[in-house]
Amino acid sequence: MKLFVPAETRPGERRVAMIPDLVGRLAPLGIEVTIESGAGTHAFATDEAYLAAGATIASAGDVDRLLGEADVVASVRPLDPERVRRLRKGSLALSFLQPGTDVEVLRAGRESGVTLMSFDLIPRISRAQSMDALSSQSLVTGYRAALVAADRLPSFFPLFMTAAGTVQAARVLVLGAGVAGLQAIATAKRLGAVVSAYDVRAASADEVRSMGGTFISLDLDALEGTGGYAREMSDDRAQRQRDLLAPYLAASDAVITTAAVPGRQAPLLVTRAMVEGMKPGSVVVDLAAETGGNVEGSKPGEEVRVGQVSIWGARDMASELPVHASRLYSMNVINVLGLLVKDGDLAIDTEDEIVSGAAVLLAGEPHHPGAFTALGIEQPPKDPEPPVSAPSEGGS
Amino acid sequence: MKLFVPAETRPGERRVAMIPDLVGRLAPLGIEVTIESGAGTHAFATDEAYLAAGATIASAGDVDRLLGEADVVASVRPLDPERVRRLRKGSLALSFLQPGTDVEVLRAGRESGVTLMSFDLIPRISRAQSMDALSSQSLVTGYRAALVAADRLPSFFPLFMTAAGTVQAARVLVLGAGVAGLQAIATAKRLGAVVSAYDVRAASADEVRSMGGTFISLDLDALEGTGGYAREMSDDRAQRQRDLLAPYLAASDAVITTAAVPGRQAPLLVTRAMVEGMKPGSVVVDLAAETGGNVEGSKPGEEVRVGQVSIWGARDMASELPVHASRLYSMNVINVLGLLVKDGDLAIDTEDEIVSGAAVLLAGEPHHPGAFTALGIEQPPKDPEPPVSAPSEGGS
Repeated sequence: MKLFVPAETRPGERRVAMIPDLVGRLAPLGIEVTIESGAGTHAFATDEAYLAAGATIASAGDVDRLLGEADVVASVRPLDPERVRRLRKGSLALSFLQPGTDVEVLRAGRESGVTLMSFDLIPRISRAQSMDALSSQSLVTGYRAALVAADRLPSFFPLFMTAAGTVQAARVLVLGAGVAGLQAIATAKRLGAVVSAYDVRAASADEVRSMGGTFISLDLDALEGTGGYAREMSDDRAQRQRDLLAPYLAASDAVITTAAVPGRQAPLLVTRAMVEGMKPGSVVVDLAAETGGNVEGSKPGEEVRVGQVSIWGARDMASELPVHASRLYSMNVINVLGLLVKDGDLAIDTEDEIVSGAAVLLAGEPHHPGAFTALGIEQPPKDPEPPVSAPSEGGS
Repeated sequence: MKLFVPAETRPGERRVAMIPDLVGRLAPLGIEVTIESGAGTHAFATDEAYLAAGATIASAGDVDRLLGEADVVASVRPLDPERVRRLRKGSLALSFLQPGTDVEVLRAGRESGVTLMSFDLIPRISRAQSMDALSSQSLVTGYRAALVAADRLPSFFPLFMTAAGTVQAARVLVLGAGVAGLQAIATAKRLGAVVSAYDVRAASADEVRSMGGTFISLDLDALEGTGGYAREMSDDRAQRQRDLLAPYLAASDAVITTAAVPGRQAPLLVTRAMVEGMKPGSVVVDLAAETGGNVEGSKPGEEVRVGQVSIWGARDMASELPVHASRLYSMNVINVLGLLVKDGDLAIDTEDEIVSGAAVLLAGEPHHPGAFTALGIEQPPKDPEPPVSAPSEGGS
């Protein structure tokens, strides 16, 4: 079995889907590894290191041929559609992939008859944890978010008792307590900040506390009983949530927002007026800036000033820690391959909940409901519905 | 008594010598405070906040007059020589000040007959701890150094045990275990790194351990008995120190150097060859970059690449945390004024070890030995030698 790892082509992407240290773990699966020359450069993985680990290095001129020969192609971002067209019929491409937004990739995959599997769609069940690249990369982004906030705040995170007097610890507020939010809480806490956090899912309170944060409960349900349709109710609740959060923002030195809904627009949690109510010198880090933003006016990869408050919009956040982000991603790839490869051959078993959940196309044919929608194909009504992980409204 | 705080004029300086929160502490000393409009802008201290605290705000056009009327002028950086010439005879200017390098300031002070006192020269005795701005600002720079290293490292500081596998903690090496070095150790440790540290002063071993670091002992004395003069011996020792440190650098992900000798060139601890021996993606932060550098090739305010290692040279590091750096500095100013002001008047008592140590000029006349040297005046031989704090070869 041949695994090919091409260099990532998207500007700003510094990760690589397989690091040299872990190449050796693929041999027991009967997998030979070929890496495009320079694929690991931004993650400080040299061609020499790959060679020493037993991989083959391919020059850029050989990429088209290798795409056509590989049984599996692993990447972080989806392959470009032209590359997908080079793939051999029946081969597998494994990466992050959103059926709703990566439509051209799906079209190309249909043409070439390949199987596309997406880390965005792996069900969040216990058995799939070791394959959950959304979680592993969120660990990175949450850690980075706290570092960015500490780096940009004009005052300390920790409390200091000095000979001259005491300096108070920073107050950090984290909105959204998914993997990224929890790691932001843990990192800010490590640095000595006083941390509180909010999530619409009241069930996350225990997790927030276990990371050292104070959980904020908002009485959104005071609205219930006022009548109205579900849609209006939802808007009302969002507005009430913002109203109730405003005083917490005003009391914070740093705010980190992490509320994401995979494949959809991020919810607006913080309005410009709320930012204007914050103290001079405060910092807001919006991890959802690339998907519409949790914070009004945030821009991916930029620092925006609102009065004396700085709003920093995340962009390619996992790529800012390319060495460990790539290591975790490589582990996830190996664990998925462990599920898909039997006796040195691909064995795509759609009876398996994980395989069925993550499969977008199977040998060119749509499998995930989103693939039917994206390709404009009517989903056969008699097919049993494949299990889909419900998008969470909470933190990513 | 009138205290005037002008805006800092040096580019890149964001601190202010008195923050609004602490203005109220000066009233009991009989001190009225005037602040130049905008002096606190970069430290997020508004004119309105100063007014609310009871200070007077002066426009830029009034600065020359106020310099001439003030009893005390406090600043972070030394006043420009032109401003020193505006000062009233017998008044006091308080700031950081190096007699050896700020010669023009001393000349201007001699012309105008003022007293210059320097935070660089306050003796490091127990009673002076609350006035020790070198220490308070080193706390800031040490904290910042660890943050900068964490921010630039392409991997995590903490160890993570994830469902997909374990990621090792970063190894951080701190060279120089003064206030900045100890705070860098503490902050890197907080973030979860495995920290070791070295200082020529073996006595700092306990302090390093109390911050959670492992102290590195080098057998420099193996050289003793080889003969030669003291000067040669010193160079030999420095070379042997570098040779013995090289393997520790090669095993580190991040190195933070903090060895400073006030008023002198920083010692070279890390050569280019030592950096070349480090792992790809490693990070070096040189806190001494502004005074010649502990690391060969480091440049203040710039990131320099040596192979796959990044060397970041510190510049105006305390100004990167202007709010708390200014708060600590303001506390130091207040504590010095508490020593110098009696019954609402300046009372410069040179019998006091702290006053005598910190005084550069007294009413225009040289007091510190360095002032005699700088002004080219022969020091009267019969005068009792003023106490001078011995420059330490250890970390700042």
